[in-house]
Amino acid sequence: MTRLLDRISSPEDLCQLSMPELDRLAAEIRARIIDVVSRHGGHLASNLGVVELTIALHRVFDFSKDRLLWDVGHQCYVHKLLTGRNALLENLRQKGGASGFPSTSESPYDLFNVGHAGTAIPTAVGMARGDAAMGRNNRVVALVGDASIVNGVAFEGLNQAGTLKRQFLVILNDNSMGIAPSQGGLAKYLARFRVSSLYEDVKHQVKAILPRVPLVGQSMYDALEHLKVGIKATVSPHQIWEQMGFLYVGPVDGHDLPHLVELLELLKDVPNPVLLHVHTEKGRGCSWATKDPCAYHSPDRFKIEGDSVTIIKGERKSWTTALADAALRIMAEDERVYALTAAMPDGTGVARIRQTLPDRCLDCGIAESCTVDVAAGMAKAGLRPLACIYSTFLQRAFDQVFQEVVLQKLPVGFCIDRAGLVGGDGAVHHGYLDLAYLRGLQDFVLMAPADEPELEAAMRLGLSLDGPWAVRYPRDMVPDVCGDGTPFQLGKARVLREGPDATILAYGTMVPAALAAAERLAEEDIFVTVVNARFCKPIDEDMVTTAITRGTPVITAEEHALIGGFGSAILETANRLGLPTESIFRMGLADRFYDHGSRGGQLVEAGLDPLTIAGTIRRLVLADRVNGHARHPAPTERTQRAGGAAE
Amino acid sequence: MTRLLDRISSPEDLCQLSMPELDRLAAEIRARIIDVVSRHGGHLASNLGVVELTIALHRVFDFSKDRLLWDVGHQCYVHKLLTGRNALLENLRQKGGASGFPSTSESPYDLFNVGHAGTAIPTAVGMARGDAAMGRNNRVVALVGDASIVNGVAFEGLNQAGTLKRQFLVILNDNSMGIAPSQGGLAKYLARFRVSSLYEDVKHQVKAILPRVPLVGQSMYDALEHLKVGIKATVSPHQIWEQMGFLYVGPVDGHDLPHLVELLELLKDVPNPVLLHVHTEKGRGCSWATKDPCAYHSPDRFKIEGDSVTIIKGERKSWTTALADAALRIMAEDERVYALTAAMPDGTGVARIRQTLPDRCLDCGIAESCTVDVAAGMAKAGLRPLACIYSTFLQRAFDQVFQEVVLQKLPVGFCIDRAGLVGGDGAVHHGYLDLAYLRGLQDFVLMAPADEPELEAAMRLGLSLDGPWAVRYPRDMVPDVCGDGTPFQLGKARVLREGPDATILAYGTMVPAALAAAERLAEEDIFVTVVNARFCKPIDEDMVTTAITRGTPVITAEEHALIGGFGSAILETANRLGLPTESIFRMGLADRFYDHGSRGGQLVEAGLDPLTIAGTIRRLVLADRVNGHARHPAPTERTQRAGGAAE
Repeated sequence: MTRLLDRISSPEDLCQLSMPELDRLAAEIRARIIDVVSRHGGHLASNLGVVELTIALHRVFDFSKDRLLWDVGHQCYVHKLLTGRNALLENLRQKGGASGFPSTSESPYDLFNVGHAGTAIPTAVGMARGDAAMGRNNRVVALVGDASIVNGVAFEGLNQAGTLKRQFLVILNDNSMGIAPSQGGLAKYLARFRVSSLYEDVKHQVKAILPRVPLVGQSMYDALEHLKVGIKATVSPHQIWEQMGFLYVGPVDGHDLPHLVELLELLKDVPNPVLLHVHTEKGRGCSWATKDPCAYHSPDRFKIEGDSVTIIKGERKSWTTALADAALRIMAEDERVYALTAAMPDGTGVARIRQTLPDRCLDCGIAESCTVDVAAGMAKAGLRPLACIYSTFLQRAFDQVFQEVVLQKLPVGFCIDRAGLVGGDGAVHHGYLDLAYLRGLQDFVLMAPADEPELEAAMRLGLSLDGPWAVRYPRDMVPDVCGDGTPFQLGKARVLREGPDATILAYGTMVPAALAAAERLAEEDIFVTVVNARFCKPIDEDMVTTAITRGTPVITAEEHALIGGFGSAILETANRLGLPTESIFRMGLADRFYDHGSRGGQLVEAGLDPLTIAGTIRRLVLADRVNGHARHPAPTERTQRAGGAAE
Repeated sequence: MTRLLDRISSPEDLCQLSMPELDRLAAEIRARIIDVVSRHGGHLASNLGVVELTIALHRVFDFSKDRLLWDVGHQCYVHKLLTGRNALLENLRQKGGASGFPSTSESPYDLFNVGHAGTAIPTAVGMARGDAAMGRNNRVVALVGDASIVNGVAFEGLNQAGTLKRQFLVILNDNSMGIAPSQGGLAKYLARFRVSSLYEDVKHQVKAILPRVPLVGQSMYDALEHLKVGIKATVSPHQIWEQMGFLYVGPVDGHDLPHLVELLELLKDVPNPVLLHVHTEKGRGCSWATKDPCAYHSPDRFKIEGDSVTIIKGERKSWTTALADAALRIMAEDERVYALTAAMPDGTGVARIRQTLPDRCLDCGIAESCTVDVAAGMAKAGLRPLACIYSTFLQRAFDQVFQEVVLQKLPVGFCIDRAGLVGGDGAVHHGYLDLAYLRGLQDFVLMAPADEPELEAAMRLGLSLDGPWAVRYPRDMVPDVCGDGTPFQLGKARVLREGPDATILAYGTMVPAALAAAERLAEEDIFVTVVNARFCKPIDEDMVTTAITRGTPVITAEEHALIGGFGSAILETANRLGLPTESIFRMGLADRFYDHGSRGGQLVEAGLDPLTIAGTIRRLVLADRVNGHARHPAPTERTQRAGGAAE
């Protein structure tokens, strides 16, 4: 029997399949996803949960015209398989393969590149308004998760959508947990609604629905009237959604494909905002994934041997685990320290802290703004909260960092995970702007550790301060110890290696890379000073003065945008001190997008690997020896500029 | 009769007053606020609306221990009058006088400096958790407006608060309009609830409340039992708030002081989150303010003569009006252009556009994130939306600008009002970071006009691009025409005046200031080139090369933080081009807070007035003539550094 999946080159092909064939297709899709994710890592359990829902959506709607907006971007694998990307998925999250998120460059069926949740409803409102203004009458569907609907912008979008006088379908995919078990009052509220077992007849439904749908014509009534089958949904009048202006339908079983198709056919032309509440099971169809959906939310590669499944973990300790271990040691000594996360307990290490100190941890859900504000309130009350948030997600709380923390001079510590290039998650998740957006905030201390001991040392300094501070580290394993083990002193860099030919001012992850580059150059009789900058704010002025007055090339290296980052801070400092800057060569991320792929590959692409750093320094040193201190742009920068926009 | 207000030096003094005296106090407070605002400008109507509510809160709670968190910061005038700041209010919003917002440096009764709404509930959650952790049992009250409760972070906070098992009172001050008439489904929902005229007896209340309050002990029951008077509130079981975990009480009349006091006494120790819904009238007690609460939301100075009230307006046109006029001309030609605002229709000029083109304008309420996402959706559908948002508030949508606009390369235009120093609103509202947080975003075109014709020229270039762009302008009147009237060309600066002794690279508002400085210097035979940079991204490389190779001092001037701003972009560009930077002297905002005061005074304080710019250039030029091109820090920069933290 040939695979049905191989016959699907576009959603139109779904119409050729019978209902039993669609069920078979669902099984094939599950097998395909498990296979691909086992080899490349990725988002497993949540994709297994939306197989039937995604098939039903593509069967009922025509998303070559209708609009499908994904709120939880990583749930798009089934959608990709149904929209001609089976082959591309073979290399999921690898360079040249499919992105792990909706990607506008891959397919017109992907309307937005999304990795930050909560945004589908407001963008759908914009598209609905835009389509109307352009004279189109296509349908709009936003698919939202129970964890992402509590995000502030999702709520703002619901509030806007409630006033639309047109078709607008929000599907709430409720698996009762999101990435981690859902947080907050709304989660409790949702939990009260289990899938109803009542089969009510359509007439009854019609009577319940129609009085609350404005502007419903006879045709709508007729459509409902003529639908012959029973519907499993209940319609409850006093839901939170109705009070926002939505017609609420649900909850329904998200794995009952025939029923979903019927229901979507019924709802697709309701001329009013509708919220369809669908219950799904995370990891559906895969016993080991349903048993531990947190572990299989976004596993690294794994191996299936018979009934046994093993996640293939890196051998080294991750920075995330290092953060948790450091926090645990510190929290044992200081009762004022609390750890907060915004729905990423595993990704930030807070889950590990929680195992030992459950009462000192708080998960505020996918609500970064709220998480920072709660931290600010805790600090105001005398605690020393750690807000553990990815660099890319902290962007969502920038104004809270400004107003509730910086303006109040509150001692909130930010533990910024995933700072720098993130590998398979790609452009939606790189942490490349945190220095740029935090550096202008008054009295904010910005630190980066070179190795695991330095992470704890930086945190200890931060916790001794009376104002805000942050420490950034990458989505990677900790390197061998490469720092000098000394405590952090405010605004003081450390010289790790001395040599007259050039100076590397390295920030965070670039310290081990710089040391490796220096090692390699030493074999060629090029001797380089390596400075572990430790601070991006305040910058160590002595470090800058010493490096520049040495008279040989000065290289700044950072895993951050060149615009507004560490190297820019060095230029500003040099300029303020009246020092020349022609000897300074900045290495960092160019003004372009970096696609998904391996983190190692991305570092090479950005020229931030030891080999490229060594090559750049070699050229600068040789040019310096020949020409005195004239400066020659090296290939690295030229390459980066070619790939990016005008700076 | 002496004024009661003069006898109030702290909230304790309220306990000495009888109920009729409290009513008299309310009248005195209104008179005082009208008097002060008429002289200095400020937030009028909303403060007149919360007189009784604020008195009742301070009468019932002890905010020397209990926590009062303001969501709508500008509603704090009554609170300031009751907490010993009557004298300070005499110079409201002036240098040395009271801030127009809660200010931690003024009084321990102000817990947070807040000017950005929506944040009281989540910070209150943090304080409640922090107080509990610190072993305190003080009460927590968050006072929220009907316009600010729709903000995403407020909702996120409600969702968190719903899970608290302790006293937590949210007061929803519902004046049915916020700053502008409230937007969205929730506003419609609130409108359904009018103040109930039912007087139910307490027993009935108790029966209604108790089953839904977990962990209520006998003492609570007794307290309710013994309260003898009737309560005007209804308790409705199926409210949106209850589904979030709150006990809902209301709506009640926010101007009935005795009733408010009774009700707060009843509710102050309920060991569960409570939402008290209070109806107030914006402008209460002042007929001309209630008749036009938008005009009297935040008027400039005004004059009362008998029954006639006149707002004293500036004689020149504001940048806000200029934006509206330019947008109207453009929108008349291009049907794809729409104007969006986040609850600031008057402050952004969208109200003026709406008078002519109501269907092409959209107000998304205090929901900046949603506004940007709606704009992104509209752009994706083929429109060319203008997101008209203040610089300081755009911080709240930074991640949406990143993900929904920049990552998708969508043609959304950002019209950034209030960029730079804002005068009376002070530190919570300065627009000093927009360049820093937008400059690192890929392919983002950043522009600033020098005068009114340039605003339209910049917008026309922006609208011709296929990606995101922004134009920034200050909270000020437009200057005399000072640009050269040519169309904007991408990344091209304009030389406005030539002279060999120095070059000023001026951005936006600094162009007229630089021209005035150059004019003054010419009288002393110092001849300066003035360049209107027009772009902060992309930077005109020829402009940088020409200025630096001229060999005389190069001054960058911007109304933005020195860290990461326009001058920093110039340094980066020079460094990339291999040009020396010692001749560059950057003028801009130092790394410190600038308090409220006049905008003119703030510009002088920041050294960005023509006189200081001329003085700086004079010193640089004279030093340059004496020493060749050696660079000497000028007093301006030294002054700035002294005022700020280490950079």
